Formats: sequence, C-alpha cells, structure tokens
Amino acid sequence: MIATIKAEQLEAMGVLLDATQSLRTEVTVGVSGRHLHVCQEHVEILFGKGHSLTPIRGLSQPGQFACEEQVNLRSAKGEIQNVRVLGPVRPETQVELSLTDTFRLKLDVSVPVRMSGKTEGSPGLTLVGPAGEVELERGVIIAQRHIHMTPEDAAAFGLTDKQMVAVACGDARQVVFGNVVVRVSNEYSLDFHIDTDEANAAGVKTGDKGYLVRPTLSYQLPITNLLG
Amino acid sequence: MIATIKAEQLEAMGVLLDATQSLRTEVTVGVSGRHLHVCQEHVEILFGKGHSLTPIRGLSQPGQFACEEQVNLRSAKGEIQNVRVLGPVRPETQVELSLTDTFRLKLDVSVPVRMSGKTEGSPGLTLVGPAGEVELERGVIIAQRHIHMTPEDAAAFGLTDKQMVAVACGDARQVVFGNVVVRVSNEYSLDFHIDTDEANAAGVKTGDKGYLVRPTLSYQLPITNLLG
Repeated sequence: MIATIKAEQLEAMGVLLDATQSLRTEVTVGVSGRHLHVCQEHVEILFGKGHSLTPIRGLSQPGQFACEEQVNLRSAKGEIQNVRVLGPVRPETQVELSLTDTFRLKLDVSVPVRMSGKTEGSPGLTLVGPAGEVELERGVIIAQRHIHMTPEDAAAFGLTDKQMVAVACGDARQVVFGNVVVRVSNEYSLDFHIDTDEANAAGVKTGDKGYLVRPTLSYQLPITNLLG
Repeated sequence: MIATIKAEQLEAMGVLLDATQSLRTEVTVGVSGRHLHVCQEHVEILFGKGHSLTPIRGLSQPGQFACEEQVNLRSAKGEIQNVRVLGPVRPETQVELSLTDTFRLKLDVSVPVRMSGKTEGSPGLTLVGPAGEVELERGVIIAQRHIHMTPEDAAAFGLTDKQMVAVACGDARQVVFGNVVVRVSNEYSLDFHIDTDEANAAGVKTGDKGYLVRPTLSYQLPITNLLG
C-alpha cells in the first residue's frame, strides 16, 4: 500500500511535497461520472410502484453498486439524459454532478461543493424516469474530492477522519489536488475519488495512481525559513 | 505584476512552492471554452463565398477576437452545437476542445494535448456551418495549458520561452497545475490559459488569480535533504 513517491516527478512540477517516508503513499484514482442516489419513495415514483433497484456491477466501496436504472435530469434551461442511479437506496435523494454539468444545465443557483449527504441549501432539479417525475427541491451537489480508507490504512498513514490532504497525479497533465478530505470507516476501502472535471484536467482515469501528500508540522520550519 | 504569494495557502495544500522572492508571482486566469480557428478557404465554405469573419469582442491576447460566427461540430457518434469561431483567420483550421468535449463526441481517436498549431497526428471531425460543411482531416486538439507573457515579463520572472512551470490556483478546490508552458512574445500579454475542465476542477473563472511557481536549482538541495 505504501509506495515510494517519485521525487523527480514532483520536483518537475515545482512542488515539494511532504517529505517524511511514511507519507509517500500511492493511492488508486476512482473517477465518478455524474450519478444519483435515490430514496425508496422516489424509486417508486420514477420506476413504478413496488420497484426495487437492479444492480449491474459493484463499485469500489463495499456494498455500493451501479444500477440498471437511469433517469434524465431536467432544469428550466437544459437536460442531461441517461444518468446512472447508484444503489443501495438512501434516506435522501442526491444528484452528484461536475461543475461542467451544472453549466450545461444552466442552473440558476450555483451548486455547492459538498461531501455526500450534506445537501442543505443545495439546488434541486427535475428527475424524469420511465414511470414518473420527481421535482427535487434540493440535493444537487458537486462531490468534494476525498479519499476513502479503513481505520487500518489511516493508522498506517498517520491520518484521521476529515483531515485535509493533497494528492498529486497525472502524467502529461500533472496536477496536485488540494482540499482532499480523508474519510475513514470500516466500511470503506482505499480509493481516491474525483469527478470527471478533475480527472480530465489531470488526464487520469479510474485505476491510475496518485500520490498522497499531507501538510505536516515538520514543514512549518522549512517554509518559514525559505519564505522568510 | 509581481505579488506576494500566500505561503499559508500553499502550506494548506501540502505543497511548498518555489521560495525565491522573485518567483512569487501573481497571474490572471483566462479560461478558454471550446472554440475553433479557421482558414479563409473554410470560412467561405462554412459561411458563404467572399465571407469574412465578424468580430464581436476582443480577447486577452492583442489582435485576437471572438467572432459572431459559430459552427456545429459533428462526429460519427455525437454533436456539439454553436461552437464559437475566433479570429483572425489562420493558415490552418484548428478545433480546441476539452477532454470532456471529446468524450461527449465519442471520437474514435484520442485527442492529443498540444500547443496551438501543433496538429500533426490529431483527429478530424465535421464542421457544419450555415452555408456548408468541412470534413476536417486533422486539427482537433486539447490545448496544453500555458502562460502568455511579454519578453519584459519573462525577464522580470527569470523565465524563458517554452520553459515548464506550475501554477497554483483555486480556493475551495485548490489545485497546482504542472506542465504549464511559458510562451514569450512581443505580441502577447500576461495571461494563464486553461480550458474548462481545468477551470472547473479548480473552481476558477476568467479574471481569478493564480500563483506562478517554478522549479529551480535552488530547490534541489532541500529536496535531496528532505526526501533522502
């Protein structure tokens, strides 16, 4: 799990990352396309009374799956068709878009960058399914980039839940992503989740490698010294 | 032109940037949406015999302008409508897309990340104008991120044409972009050009600020020391 970061690669980007050996950590990139999670009430409105979601393949996080079911997203000024539902059902319906998608839908209210489940103050839109439509009042977010990991991973990396780290990835389009939230749970497995804008900006795809970087106290002295 | 970089901001990203005072340089972000440059022959096929481009507003680079003219881009499996033509006319037609756009068009051949004018081996597509269509054999690229600057800027920053630097930008979605090419010419003005994927991944828009970063020899010693 712990790999040696390529110092010359980071140097070529003009960035100097956390230097302690234990933090030169390779993570796998997982790219999330636009998708939605739905509550059971909305499943039945969109796909028919008594309907339950049909899994077609598992996702990187245990127990999560892509479904056969798709919906169209409709705003006052645009539409995106055939958006995948992910299961299992959740207590609240939530639509996860890229910023590019939100411009394509010309949403009136700006869509916040949020962790999953934090939908307060987010805009809604219309979900169009084969059996009916749902006027969502809120629940449209841009997913904040994050790393899932187990408590064992977190202990090995010296990280805690909700800590902010950075991840370097990409080859011809190298990028260091800041504001990456660490999410720790027994139910997770190690994966660095970004959306399609982030993946395309770095030219990476699911399965590519990134390098986890963490600001540490050990850095404060050299920063103070060097930046005066 | 030379501003003090926010060290605490960079520290929060876990990255330590070039530390010499002269390189803490603020640059303005310019976001390029998908667009195309066209040769005069294609202008006349697309918009009518004897037609010349109609400027509607100037761009950040002197002499460059957005045009009233738009075309649709058509591939075997997709279409993007109303893509803006930029003027003046060029010797060769060139279409600049984001990686997201290329997925939307489902192009069979992957689109290379290139500097403007470097179209060797790039795929084509069909341009659809009000007066006719052009089957482009090549010329579809993803623009490599770059910074335009004058020779005076370059001298002030200690940079030369074609040098690679990095640029940090963004607030809630902080990103350090590597592989940024410096372009120096008397005909340029200082501007950091990225595409919509890159802008959206960082949550920035035209007019926002970035911080120019450069790897320097002065860094090699601390990197060697710290990374062992």
